[in-house]
Amino acid sequence: MTSTFSVDNQKSLMLFSGRAHPELAEQVAKELDVTVTPQTARDFANGEIFVRFEQSVRGSDAFVLQSHPAPLNTWVMEQLIMIDALKRGSAKRITAVLPFYPYARQDKKHRGREPISARLIADLLKTAGADRIITVDLHTDQIQGFFDGPVDHMHAHTQLAEHIRAGYNLDHISVVSPDSGRVRVAEKWADSLGGAPLAFIHKTRDPLVPNQVKSNRVVGEVEGRTCILIDDMIDTGGTIAGAVKVLKEAGAGDVVIAATHGVLSDPAAERLANCGAKEVIVTNTLPISEDKKFDQLTVLSIAPLLARTIREVFENGSVTSLFNGSA
Amino acid sequence: MTSTFSVDNQKSLMLFSGRAHPELAEQVAKELDVTVTPQTARDFANGEIFVRFEQSVRGSDAFVLQSHPAPLNTWVMEQLIMIDALKRGSAKRITAVLPFYPYARQDKKHRGREPISARLIADLLKTAGADRIITVDLHTDQIQGFFDGPVDHMHAHTQLAEHIRAGYNLDHISVVSPDSGRVRVAEKWADSLGGAPLAFIHKTRDPLVPNQVKSNRVVGEVEGRTCILIDDMIDTGGTIAGAVKVLKEAGAGDVVIAATHGVLSDPAAERLANCGAKEVIVTNTLPISEDKKFDQLTVLSIAPLLARTIREVFENGSVTSLFNGSA
Amino acid sequence: MTSTFSVDNQKSLMLFSGRAHPELAEQVAKELDVTVTPQTARDFANGEIFVRFEQSVRGSDAFVLQSHPAPLNTWVMEQLIMIDALKRGSAKRITAVLPFYPYARQDKKHRGREPISARLIADLLKTAGADRIITVDLHTDQIQGFFDGPVDHMHAHTQLAEHIRAGYNLDHISVVSPDSGRVRVAEKWADSLGGAPLAFIHKTRDPLVPNQVKSNRVVGEVEGRTCILIDDMIDTGGTIAGAVKVLKEAGAGDVVIAATHGVLSDPAAERLANCGAKEVIVTNTLPISEDKKFDQLTVLSIAPLLARTIREVFENGSVTSLFNGSA
Amino acid sequence: MTSTFSVDNQKSLMLFSGRAHPELAEQVAKELDVTVTPQTARDFANGEIFVRFEQSVRGSDAFVLQSHPAPLNTWVMEQLIMIDALKRGSAKRITAVLPFYPYARQDKKHRGREPISARLIADLLKTAGADRIITVDLHTDQIQGFFDGPVDHMHAHTQLAEHIRAGYNLDHISVVSPDSGRVRVAEKWADSLGGAPLAFIHKTRDPLVPNQVKSNRVVGEVEGRTCILIDDMIDTGGTIAGAVKVLKEAGAGDVVIAATHGVLSDPAAERLANCGAKEVIVTNTLPISEDKKFDQLTVLSIAPLLARTIREVFENGSVTSLFNGSA
Amino acid sequence: MTSTFSVDNQKSLMLFSGRAHPELAEQVAKELDVTVTPQTARDFANGEIFVRFEQSVRGSDAFVLQSHPAPLNTWVMEQLIMIDALKRGSAKRITAVLPFYPYARQDKKHRGREPISARLIADLLKTAGADRIITVDLHTDQIQGFFDGPVDHMHAHTQLAEHIRAGYNLDHISVVSPDSGRVRVAEKWADSLGGAPLAFIHKTRDPLVPNQVKSNRVVGEVEGRTCILIDDMIDTGGTIAGAVKVLKEAGAGDVVIAATHGVLSDPAAERLANCGAKEVIVTNTLPISEDKKFDQLTVLSIAPLLARTIREVFENGSVTSLFNGSA
Amino acid sequence: MTSTFSVDNQKSLMLFSGRAHPELAEQVAKELDVTVTPQTARDFANGEIFVRFEQSVRGSDAFVLQSHPAPLNTWVMEQLIMIDALKRGSAKRITAVLPFYPYARQDKKHRGREPISARLIADLLKTAGADRIITVDLHTDQIQGFFDGPVDHMHAHTQLAEHIRAGYNLDHISVVSPDSGRVRVAEKWADSLGGAPLAFIHKTRDPLVPNQVKSNRVVGEVEGRTCILIDDMIDTGGTIAGAVKVLKEAGAGDVVIAATHGVLSDPAAERLANCGAKEVIVTNTLPISEDKKFDQLTVLSIAPLLARTIREVFENGSVTSLFNGSA
Repeated sequence: MTSTFSVDNQKSLMLFSGRAHPELAEQVAKELDVTVTPQTARDFANGEIFVRFEQSVRGSDAFVLQSHPAPLNTWVMEQLIMIDALKRGSAKRITAVLPFYPYARQDKKHRGREPISARLIADLLKTAGADRIITVDLHTDQIQGFFDGPVDHMHAHTQLAEHIRAGYNLDHISVVSPDSGRVRVAEKWADSLGGAPLAFIHKTRDPLVPNQVKSNRVVGEVEGRTCILIDDMIDTGGTIAGAVKVLKEAGAGDVVIAATHGVLSDPAAERLANCGAKEVIVTNTLPISEDKKFDQLTVLSIAPLLARTIREVFENGSVTSLFNGSA
Repeated sequence: MTSTFSVDNQKSLMLFSGRAHPELAEQVAKELDVTVTPQTARDFANGEIFVRFEQSVRGSDAFVLQSHPAPLNTWVMEQLIMIDALKRGSAKRITAVLPFYPYARQDKKHRGREPISARLIADLLKTAGADRIITVDLHTDQIQGFFDGPVDHMHAHTQLAEHIRAGYNLDHISVVSPDSGRVRVAEKWADSLGGAPLAFIHKTRDPLVPNQVKSNRVVGEVEGRTCILIDDMIDTGGTIAGAVKVLKEAGAGDVVIAATHGVLSDPAAERLANCGAKEVIVTNTLPISEDKKFDQLTVLSIAPLLARTIREVFENGSVTSLFNGSA
Repeated sequence: MTSTFSVDNQKSLMLFSGRAHPELAEQVAKELDVTVTPQTARDFANGEIFVRFEQSVRGSDAFVLQSHPAPLNTWVMEQLIMIDALKRGSAKRITAVLPFYPYARQDKKHRGREPISARLIADLLKTAGADRIITVDLHTDQIQGFFDGPVDHMHAHTQLAEHIRAGYNLDHISVVSPDSGRVRVAEKWADSLGGAPLAFIHKTRDPLVPNQVKSNRVVGEVEGRTCILIDDMIDTGGTIAGAVKVLKEAGAGDVVIAATHGVLSDPAAERLANCGAKEVIVTNTLPISEDKKFDQLTVLSIAPLLARTIREVFENGSVTSLFNGSA
Repeated sequence: MTSTFSVDNQKSLMLFSGRAHPELAEQVAKELDVTVTPQTARDFANGEIFVRFEQSVRGSDAFVLQSHPAPLNTWVMEQLIMIDALKRGSAKRITAVLPFYPYARQDKKHRGREPISARLIADLLKTAGADRIITVDLHTDQIQGFFDGPVDHMHAHTQLAEHIRAGYNLDHISVVSPDSGRVRVAEKWADSLGGAPLAFIHKTRDPLVPNQVKSNRVVGEVEGRTCILIDDMIDTGGTIAGAVKVLKEAGAGDVVIAATHGVLSDPAAERLANCGAKEVIVTNTLPISEDKKFDQLTVLSIAPLLARTIREVFENGSVTSLFNGSA
Repeated sequence: MTSTFSVDNQKSLMLFSGRAHPELAEQVAKELDVTVTPQTARDFANGEIFVRFEQSVRGSDAFVLQSHPAPLNTWVMEQLIMIDALKRGSAKRITAVLPFYPYARQDKKHRGREPISARLIADLLKTAGADRIITVDLHTDQIQGFFDGPVDHMHAHTQLAEHIRAGYNLDHISVVSPDSGRVRVAEKWADSLGGAPLAFIHKTRDPLVPNQVKSNRVVGEVEGRTCILIDDMIDTGGTIAGAVKVLKEAGAGDVVIAATHGVLSDPAAERLANCGAKEVIVTNTLPISEDKKFDQLTVLSIAPLLARTIREVFENGSVTSLFNGSA
Repeated sequence: MTSTFSVDNQKSLMLFSGRAHPELAEQVAKELDVTVTPQTARDFANGEIFVRFEQSVRGSDAFVLQSHPAPLNTWVMEQLIMIDALKRGSAKRITAVLPFYPYARQDKKHRGREPISARLIADLLKTAGADRIITVDLHTDQIQGFFDGPVDHMHAHTQLAEHIRAGYNLDHISVVSPDSGRVRVAEKWADSLGGAPLAFIHKTRDPLVPNQVKSNRVVGEVEGRTCILIDDMIDTGGTIAGAVKVLKEAGAGDVVIAATHGVLSDPAAERLANCGAKEVIVTNTLPISEDKKFDQLTVLSIAPLLARTIREVFENGSVTSLFNGSA
């Protein structure tokens, strides 16, 4: 009998999934060769969520995957509640996996007396018990700094660009940003597509009339070129469909839309199907139901990227190496 | 010219309201003789909420009233976002007013690997920036201790009991708890209704079969008596309507139901209308839409109580005195 | 020579004990097949406590067992000081083991301007450096939610009920709660003792005269039955002895008292010895000195339960499984 | 003799200044009609800073102004130490005023294993004791969200644009962003200068060769136009001087440079003097020593804006109103 | 009806007292011309403390005075509980007043695996809700830095020195430190007593035998001189009485002992009465019961100093000015 | 396919070094048989520091060594930034190694309205992400308590004393403290050097004239003896050189100076070379450039002590054992 006894320390990966997008969780689980941890999750009549895990989570390295489509607030609360249950159930480390970061567009105060909801989300995750975050293509890179802990920020850019390289002749393309705020990202695309020309849509506004666009002008070279119109997300599709129209009016050739997050709120499907774009490429960071699909839509799976990242994080490998040093 | 300049310090009350129950906010505002602070609040297509206040909130003593009916998680997030906007807008002190505390029933782990969501809510409010909480009739008193700061815990008991005293002969009543967990509260009712007898419904369960009730037995004296059946909230009404049936079978006279929170999720209205209760009394801590109303339903307004509490808090008066020392 | 060197990670359990109840620590250590870590602990003349561990605690998984009999505040401070020393001595994880949670009865504000000392205790433990808590039969389950981290909440119920099943004929028993606040717990007892009837003592009070009981009435069926009178703790024994008296007057047969925590402050031993109870069963979560013992007293050891829990926590097993899923 | 005694609560503004840019503090103090609070501040031989205030700061509403030129880390530490002294000296509220926010360019991880120093600065200010921040033209708006508290974010845009409107014919101007990341800001300038055309410099890079620009292309209409080349800061002037050259090669007319922060590290003065720009307009958020000045340089004072902001904050007025709602 | 209503902000001082030293609280209250706020405070049979205030504390500037004699841990917990009650009762600001700071001697780790209990006390006070601390003559000045907030550190030196100047001829005195750790403090005394010579007792130890003094040597000039032997506290009096003996053996004239804190644990009174000292001067930061008193003992009241400090803190005056700038 | 997969947990030591004293880092690395992790570290023109690690740090046990010579604030910020990068890069545990703790002399408020910068440094390290601290010979031991976590406090005393024992006859030595505040430390030296006599320099001051010394008197026996003059650090050398002069005037024989930290700010080298001391012994906790060296200077390497400590911390050995229990 001695005063301590010692055992070898093992660590175990466990994958948990909220109810927003079970298909994605199943794809990630398959890539990782694990099963999603069984759980009971249900809604009370007034909307309160109840979650209970069916297996012991004690000591686990827990990854809690939740997608954030509408009704977004419900899925945010579900993920927070799952994290709370893991914390109280003695998980060793908790990583919140958010393929689409909610409220990312509210990353600053545009005017006084506004919230910064993207920071709030980071704080809520921390408070519930998340030690780390894995996410994909944040609306702005600065959101990484909202969380007080490690953020592994993945990029779908490589997958999307691969798809374009495979399907289009790069000799006559231009990369186009739909507004003035995303020209930097378009520049990176242009570099990776062989040094293509850049363009963007310049929206003019009357400073005395808030939130109203007076005109849309194309700045840059688009006439007769295949335009790769890029964005981080497509919500109702109004801006992006409008951009296609402006490009066409400016004499553009084919227009191909590429975005990581297919929010596709109504009437996005209809707008995109009819806007004149040749192809619309997104990933499945958000579930895309059958009624949102249309002929020109291509959906790439984000699951391999998420799975590789989770594995590197679990095994203390290098996530940066997945992106040639840029993540 | 000196090295400091000084002014008298004033403090100003401002009332803010989420969108869950605007009528209640209007009633409270009227009692306080202020207006609800104008704001812009809207939902993005994917469910993200945006809030902006139309007036400067700098230095204010802010009271943020939100009710929590379904879709409850949406209203929780809205209140958190409003608090964040107030914090960043330099409000001096922020009091979250929650007439119905969300997730109050999840105040402990019933079994392993469950969340304690009522504690989580307290932490989320704190993280967003709430300095204090005002709430009404918590599911259990211990929830006060979940918040790291002052909680003013109001009781609708006085109002409800007043209504009963006015309408019923107290000589032949019994106070009944619908289950074993609320007998303590029933005891307080019995004292305030002149020392009435107590009863409760004893539910037996097979310990090997979780969550299934084998039988309901009335314990205590109810035969021929007017039964005041009390609870903190009525959600789908199953338990409480079942209790009326058991009481009737045990020979009870009239049954009057009194509860603070009328959640009234479907099919509560139908159940309660047909369960045989003579009257069902609730307050408007939650909005009660027209389709939830039925003949036997009486709705008392909680606004005067909330307004008096807010005023005492603002003026550093005694909230305890509103309850003869018991709050 | 490389830029990192790596070793296998081991983890080591170390058990520490405050001075309040060394026998219990020895029993737990024996069950775990370790020794209590040697330490120097002494009191300065003015009551200040000094603690120093005689072995390195660096990297250990430390369990700090302290019981909380009178003088309770001394033992609280000793445990906090031990935790501080472990934190500063680089223990890897610190679990505070509190078989009897101090100040558990102060888990809410009964009236205004009161503390919530049970929450305060949780915060003090956290501040000193405790990562987790193990405790037994909290006064109310909600206290789990006072600690911001994992709480393993054990129940002595199984052991106590086992003892009763072995010694009494379950056919003619009733389970009795000594007051209206513990009827829920009595209900669980009734289920596990084969569906026995329930009863409780209804105390009436004049709402205008605080804290004074006017009468005690038995509600439920006790006449001629063996009454199992249950509670979480017995302090001075006034309430419980009074309950025996009331039960006897109501025609009860044998009365058996079962409680987890035998605080047994004076004059509990005398009162219980003479109150007419056939047996009084408690556990040794608190030390029971010889002068507190009396003929009808049975003391069960809580050490096996604590040791099994500590082992499961250390080895990342399932504590819930110790209770068939209910912990 | 009573149990409380009460006095009217006054609040007093006190202005404190680090040693980085005393002229600016004097200008602000004059605008506010107060004096800078006298203090002792000196450096120990090894660089440690010592600060002591010569007047009581107890209960004050303290504004701690520090500019952040080179040696920047020294001035960061001085401001932190001043805040610590105010916290320990019982100032009631502490506002850190940073006309130029240090490390603002490190607002995200460009690649793995990098710090987010702009977030770190926010956390250090909070830890030292700052309750709030006032700053001017952050490198990106998202930095507001790095601080857990109110940030009043001022814009020098109005002043700079006023100066341009007064000196140049707006009919033939273009607004130019020196790189792809600042086109959004240029768009706002274009709106406020009457809907001028936009342009930017497109830098192409080989994705396999990090950090090396292959070519600079002007995108947008600049030929024969007066170009307003805008940026948030000018450090060594390499990028901006290069942009002038590219614009000139593209046939631009006069080029006018406008930036809020004149860092002007060597050899900025020389570069800018010789780059061909007609005028270089900055503000004095940073001190501009005589040896940094050159003929084309115009320096506007930021003091009136800071003073008005401090006054509004102190008097609980609306800072937003200073910017027609956009701050 | 407008959207805000405003009132003048008043602030009110309230004084609270623990039960350790009610006479001191009464003296302080009298100096301040207020009454101690009435409260209920009692002990449960197992030592748990209960506190409730009899008046509303909402919005008050609360000063919570507690002395810390034996049983010291009890009084620490009582003060923490009072602070918790004030926090939850909405006091605006809470100042813990500790005339004798508990555990001050445990301000560092002397060896490995020890606590730093003086830091722990600071953290416990903060956690309970104390915003600030007022204390007198800390064992070491560095303890100020243990609290994350303002500490007003008072010195009884002036009062004690005044008493000595009034009663002794300063021409032939030496100031003596009883050990090597307090020579710095003795030096300050020497300065304020007109530049008297310094001496101290050099204790030699064998480095291989812990905690055992081999010899005591007087270093410095004491022969034929009146020795003022100073210390911060006298606990059991062993060290100080031993110092008197060594001084007498070294030929000292009269020996006068001056210390701020008269802990006077047994057998201090007997030792000091018989050690040969001419006078022993302490203050009443701790209660000194009749059985601890002896002929040579002089007790000065600390109440005027505490009261003046509290008043300055309340009125935002300068505490430093009470000590000519040295506090 | 199962629901978890497990791997053995390894831990890896990684050593990081700031740019202040690369030689020391190399020495420590050599002792540990690792290499310093390669990194990019550079200064922007305005003084902003940029750091990036060239290898994955995920999961590592990171030790971040930084020395703190002038420009001290730069090195403090660099260490904070490195810690931030490690935190965000998912290091498992971060230990800040500070051979010389910056701002250690500001460990208390000497007068009102001063900072406690040594506490601030501890808080900044914690905020940036440091879990633990390793440091050498703190100015006062209490600084350990400023950090909320484990502090391994090393002592160079053994090495320095060894050097003296090897080079000097201990029969005729006295140990001398240069002022009244370091007599305690001198006493420890005296014990370890065989029970040598103690002396110190008594500085007298006029209490009405701050910071001005009137006279220096030697207290204790130094005539004809070899004086070992000890201190924790030598900054400009004024105090220590003055002490040599006073000792010589008092008839001392050889004077040998021993201090852990050779800050040696100008004109220390010149003063010490000419002050009459026979030898000046320091360690290389700080870099000592060639121009600071002089004939009498001996520099001992602190690297072996740091390396042994790092190894014990990494391997969960006992650091205390390195010091025979006194650390």
